[in-house]
Amino acid sequence: MIAKALRWVGDVDGFLELIDQQRLPLEFVKVQCRDIGQVYEAISTLVVRGAPAIGVSAAYGLVLGMQSLDINSDLQAAFSSLEKFCGYLASSRPTAVNLSWALGRIRRKAHGFVTDGKSINLRMLREVVFAEANAIYREDVDMCRRIGENGQNFIRQDSGILTHCNAGALAAAGQGMSLSMMFEAHKMGRKFKTYVDETRPLLQGARLTAWELKQAGIDTVVICDNMAGWLMKQGKIDLVVTGADRITANGDTANKIGTYSLSILAREHNIPFYIAAPSSTFDLNLKSGSEIPIEQRDAKEVTMFANMQIAPDGIGVCNPAFDVTDAQNITAIITEKGIIEKPSADSISKHFKD
Amino acid sequence: MIAKALRWVGDVDGFLELIDQQRLPLEFVKVQCRDIGQVYEAISTLVVRGAPAIGVSAAYGLVLGMQSLDINSDLQAAFSSLEKFCGYLASSRPTAVNLSWALGRIRRKAHGFVTDGKSINLRMLREVVFAEANAIYREDVDMCRRIGENGQNFIRQDSGILTHCNAGALAAAGQGMSLSMMFEAHKMGRKFKTYVDETRPLLQGARLTAWELKQAGIDTVVICDNMAGWLMKQGKIDLVVTGADRITANGDTANKIGTYSLSILAREHNIPFYIAAPSSTFDLNLKSGSEIPIEQRDAKEVTMFANMQIAPDGIGVCNPAFDVTDAQNITAIITEKGIIEKPSADSISKHFKD
Repeated sequence: MIAKALRWVGDVDGFLELIDQQRLPLEFVKVQCRDIGQVYEAISTLVVRGAPAIGVSAAYGLVLGMQSLDINSDLQAAFSSLEKFCGYLASSRPTAVNLSWALGRIRRKAHGFVTDGKSINLRMLREVVFAEANAIYREDVDMCRRIGENGQNFIRQDSGILTHCNAGALAAAGQGMSLSMMFEAHKMGRKFKTYVDETRPLLQGARLTAWELKQAGIDTVVICDNMAGWLMKQGKIDLVVTGADRITANGDTANKIGTYSLSILAREHNIPFYIAAPSSTFDLNLKSGSEIPIEQRDAKEVTMFANMQIAPDGIGVCNPAFDVTDAQNITAIITEKGIIEKPSADSISKHFKD
Repeated sequence: MIAKALRWVGDVDGFLELIDQQRLPLEFVKVQCRDIGQVYEAISTLVVRGAPAIGVSAAYGLVLGMQSLDINSDLQAAFSSLEKFCGYLASSRPTAVNLSWALGRIRRKAHGFVTDGKSINLRMLREVVFAEANAIYREDVDMCRRIGENGQNFIRQDSGILTHCNAGALAAAGQGMSLSMMFEAHKMGRKFKTYVDETRPLLQGARLTAWELKQAGIDTVVICDNMAGWLMKQGKIDLVVTGADRITANGDTANKIGTYSLSILAREHNIPFYIAAPSSTFDLNLKSGSEIPIEQRDAKEVTMFANMQIAPDGIGVCNPAFDVTDAQNITAIITEKGIIEKPSADSISKHFKD
């Protein structure tokens, strides 16, 4: 069974249901969001995380916001509330690009409806917002499935796969990015084993990826991040696949810290290294990875674990959120539109023209 | 100030004092061992750890054992007790090579005293055991200092050093192996920065290495293991140095899991990679690393973090205690007898002949 990070229950008057990812893997608890404040809370406290999943959740957060308006309020007041709701949700995780993208798309759709000259009332506006949220949801589900279909061929019978962090169903509305390939290969009856980097400091691999692969019935082994190279040396790994946070015009790819090292280790052992990511991950305004700013996160993520201090008081810490893998270390980028072999400025620009 | 993992306080009737390494870095507590049972307990519960430190502690454990004998007991009974004490201490951590080495050395010395035809009584036997324990201690202190003196030249003003696990003063009677180089360079007034891999699963880097470097006043930064490659790419690392568990005749080196990956990443970035280890670490009976058995440790070390479960119930786990770094990835091995550049069967056999 593939986990569903989120789903909408019912019609325009329904509610959003989320898996509480903060409590995985110890407890599998579903949370119901029945007002916009609960969605804000869920996003900001990481009950739901992963760029696509946050975007879709925020979209449904707007639907819940619109539910709260008095059905007799005039349209101008409703639009002004919609703006307020967007600003509010956008601040739940300010750096999440998909979040503001999804909110912007719904705003434009709603405003477009009015400027189209169509007569509209609040009931219709609510339906427009709901329909667009559903469209974003369905597109995400399609995108995930297509990435999986496009990538599953790389997984052979008895393959050993290594993955890092979580680019799975828990990070999306659909069945994820890098894990989607595995779900598709599994569906086709292929047997393989997935090694999951625990992914320090926040352990998304051990906590989330291992959980959802196990739920899906896939043979899964958790390792510490520093064991990956040795497993490659032992011949246990046939391919590496990760997701991506941002991909530049030449194919350089920002992803969770540790990805760069994996790409070097994979090349050393002649193991193909794949990125599985939607086309929306490409930022063609950036020429290369050197233009990507690297976020430094709180030192406490490294020095504390589950409220327990593991390093001396006042010690220096380095905690980059992600690193950049050079395009030349990437065998192929798997998108919903197809596969970009040997990613480069040329092959990527061709991908977006086709 | 360089930490002292252990010291003997007083004369033959004295006691052993240990830093409780289980409580670092949160608490700095010294433990007094006044009978052999307390030494057994300290070794088996990892109050004291690190091959050289365990060996010296066990040696002093024998001294404490001999203290407990009735001074009027006959010599044959005393020798039979000595045998019993050796067997008892050896079982405190059965796989620690230095432990049985130190115990064997004292036994041989004691028996040698008798077969030399010298008249001996229990008081003298106790002094013989004590003197040999002190000799083992002093040799360890000398060995550590010499490794540091031989290796300090590799550390330049403003160097960035990466280290993994703990091969420091906490692992020895003296000032450690890989950290000894840093203590010597620091003593000479050189400024440099040490990046410490936290070293999952047991976090010896974050807990112990970071603590003792900070105590010594060295600029120290803790990182997660998966960040090392990215720091190298950023030009922050000028050299890597680790300890060793075992080195074979051709220079292949077993050390804490993660060391192999570091050696590949260092080579990729043209960064020298050093091993600092005493000559006693060489096992010349083994031709190459492929003959070293790899111990798999308890899955719980990976699935639990600071007493908190971090991976799903029943998930597969891979937990090799160490890995093997190929000699060709090692720039030099730094021993107390000198430096083995480009380690190979030839250069190592020369090292042991000279």
